[in-house]
Amino acid sequence: MNDKSNKEEDNLSNISEVDLIKRITKTFKKTKKSTIIDIGDDAALLNFDKTNIAISQDILVEGIHFDLSYVPLKHLGYKSVVVNISDIISMNVKPSHILVSIAVSNRFKINALEELYEGIKLACLNYNIDLIGGDTTSSNKGLVISVTCIGNTKNRKIIERNGAKINDLLVVSGDLGAAYMGLQVLEREKKVFEVNPNSQPDLSQYTYCIQKQLKPEPRIDIIDYLEELKIIPSSMIDISDGLSTEINHLSRSSGLSFHINEDLIPVSEITKKVCEEFKIDYSTASLNGGEDYELLFTTSKRNLKKIKQSQFLSVIGTCVNNKNDNCMITSLGQKININSSGWDSFNDNN
Amino acid sequence: MNDKSNKEEDNLSNISEVDLIKRITKTFKKTKKSTIIDIGDDAALLNFDKTNIAISQDILVEGIHFDLSYVPLKHLGYKSVVVNISDIISMNVKPSHILVSIAVSNRFKINALEELYEGIKLACLNYNIDLIGGDTTSSNKGLVISVTCIGNTKNRKIIERNGAKINDLLVVSGDLGAAYMGLQVLEREKKVFEVNPNSQPDLSQYTYCIQKQLKPEPRIDIIDYLEELKIIPSSMIDISDGLSTEINHLSRSSGLSFHINEDLIPVSEITKKVCEEFKIDYSTASLNGGEDYELLFTTSKRNLKKIKQSQFLSVIGTCVNNKNDNCMITSLGQKININSSGWDSFNDNN
Repeated sequence: MNDKSNKEEDNLSNISEVDLIKRITKTFKKTKKSTIIDIGDDAALLNFDKTNIAISQDILVEGIHFDLSYVPLKHLGYKSVVVNISDIISMNVKPSHILVSIAVSNRFKINALEELYEGIKLACLNYNIDLIGGDTTSSNKGLVISVTCIGNTKNRKIIERNGAKINDLLVVSGDLGAAYMGLQVLEREKKVFEVNPNSQPDLSQYTYCIQKQLKPEPRIDIIDYLEELKIIPSSMIDISDGLSTEINHLSRSSGLSFHINEDLIPVSEITKKVCEEFKIDYSTASLNGGEDYELLFTTSKRNLKKIKQSQFLSVIGTCVNNKNDNCMITSLGQKININSSGWDSFNDNN
Repeated sequence: MNDKSNKEEDNLSNISEVDLIKRITKTFKKTKKSTIIDIGDDAALLNFDKTNIAISQDILVEGIHFDLSYVPLKHLGYKSVVVNISDIISMNVKPSHILVSIAVSNRFKINALEELYEGIKLACLNYNIDLIGGDTTSSNKGLVISVTCIGNTKNRKIIERNGAKINDLLVVSGDLGAAYMGLQVLEREKKVFEVNPNSQPDLSQYTYCIQKQLKPEPRIDIIDYLEELKIIPSSMIDISDGLSTEINHLSRSSGLSFHINEDLIPVSEITKKVCEEFKIDYSTASLNGGEDYELLFTTSKRNLKKIKQSQFLSVIGTCVNNKNDNCMITSLGQKININSSGWDSFNDNN
């Protein structure tokens, strides 16, 4: 390997994913009229005549993004697709096509890959998507999955990360923290299993959280619902890396800040109970946990009444004029700074 | 891992890539009017209004597809892009946009990734492509690169793998076998280096072959050239896995066979000399070597004269009516069966 530098600051562990991408792509310039949005949003956006095409690509690595000791391959196939779909949906576009590439070691049997593709197929059926291609190759070790998802629209308004306006409401769909707590349950059960392979745990009380972790459903229903309610988001993102990280993304893209209220963050009673058992503060689970794949968006204050009446949406804060002032008012009335402490590929011990 | 089967026939090493893809995707159905070509060609094809969009995705794994002990990262970045471009070109479409995802271990420094992206940028500049997105994440070990390439066209005729007709000419661009021989040189030098790290080899006589291995150039010029000459291919593919494999792909897709003539396969004098040194038959290098990224296409006999006059194209055989009868007439007049013995991810010791 051609490492010229041995300086500490040149280590990957000293840079965030966002800063790394900025650094390695800073000299790239878009040259094509068809390129509407390039690096830096949930998905890229291309325009050809009347059609806008949103396109995103993810890469999932065994041991980093998934642990096959407790993730069934069918669920993994399903999740690999839906996490990508979610990026397209967060642009307010419906996914239509995917390409799936896998690199897989000889440890895997053909029927294991059939299970993986069963999950991919189920996601395609559930979300009305065609699998159109990809690549299949070997790896020295483990499984790597790369999914490209394409969505197209003629009429839908494209929602980017950067449209938030002062006084806009900050709104989240569904509830948060469940996927993270599902992961805690699965990690604990893995440890129990390692000590006693004959244990037969009753996980029924954790079904909701485990389901949110293993088989998340991206909120394609929400973008239809918003359209029906005539609520137009000014900016939008999906919550893959934890609420605080996503708030920071919206904030940085829009050049504004958000003040949120701890009491307003939607957390289900089931998740709260699991948090209690694990002695994890449920705000921490929702702020930093990630993988909820709910939508986080900003919209005009005019929509407050409609949102308040909705069981699927929660206003959690507002957009303020300051820069670098994202903060949360806690239940005890304290103002705390929300740092971007969600999942970051290069800094976590994931 | 959920391996239900321990049967020998269920091992990945017992199935070809093509058969594996068929098996794991056999129950997928295309449902969208916009999906014109799905799994099985070099690239997928989507249609929106007047625009056809070709899209392909590759995944490259350290230790399988590249060896960083002799591949400079800048070259690797360049090659990752161009191998994908080549898939789009082989549909007779010009590439326009790419997404690049990487999974990388902490062994890499930030400046190593900057070098990789320097190569990606150079490929983007040389082939007039916008980098529009991707994903950047960590891996436990090594480097994985996944590239999605998009091309779009309103007017160009899409050329698939399956259009060959009886009596069509089989034509190849450029010359073959050089990239494979470049690999042999690099592998040998690696071994020499392992024994004597101070060796200063003179590789100047191998420049052509090494260049073809490390920095291949996909034949975007050839599709323009064919247009200029008014030669319309009936089927086309790029030579990534060796001539014999690609002939088998065209054959299977068209339901016809090819008879080729060993003496007609274009191999450069430089490559022949390197083959001699390595005691490798140069037909073997061109038939089974791969990574030439030349174009292999079929076209009507009417174009014979134009092709014969061209320094960039070589007729190597014709298309016959039989099934499963791909063969080569050797220099000695023997007829030998051409099995698909090029690079296959799951069966080679690559």
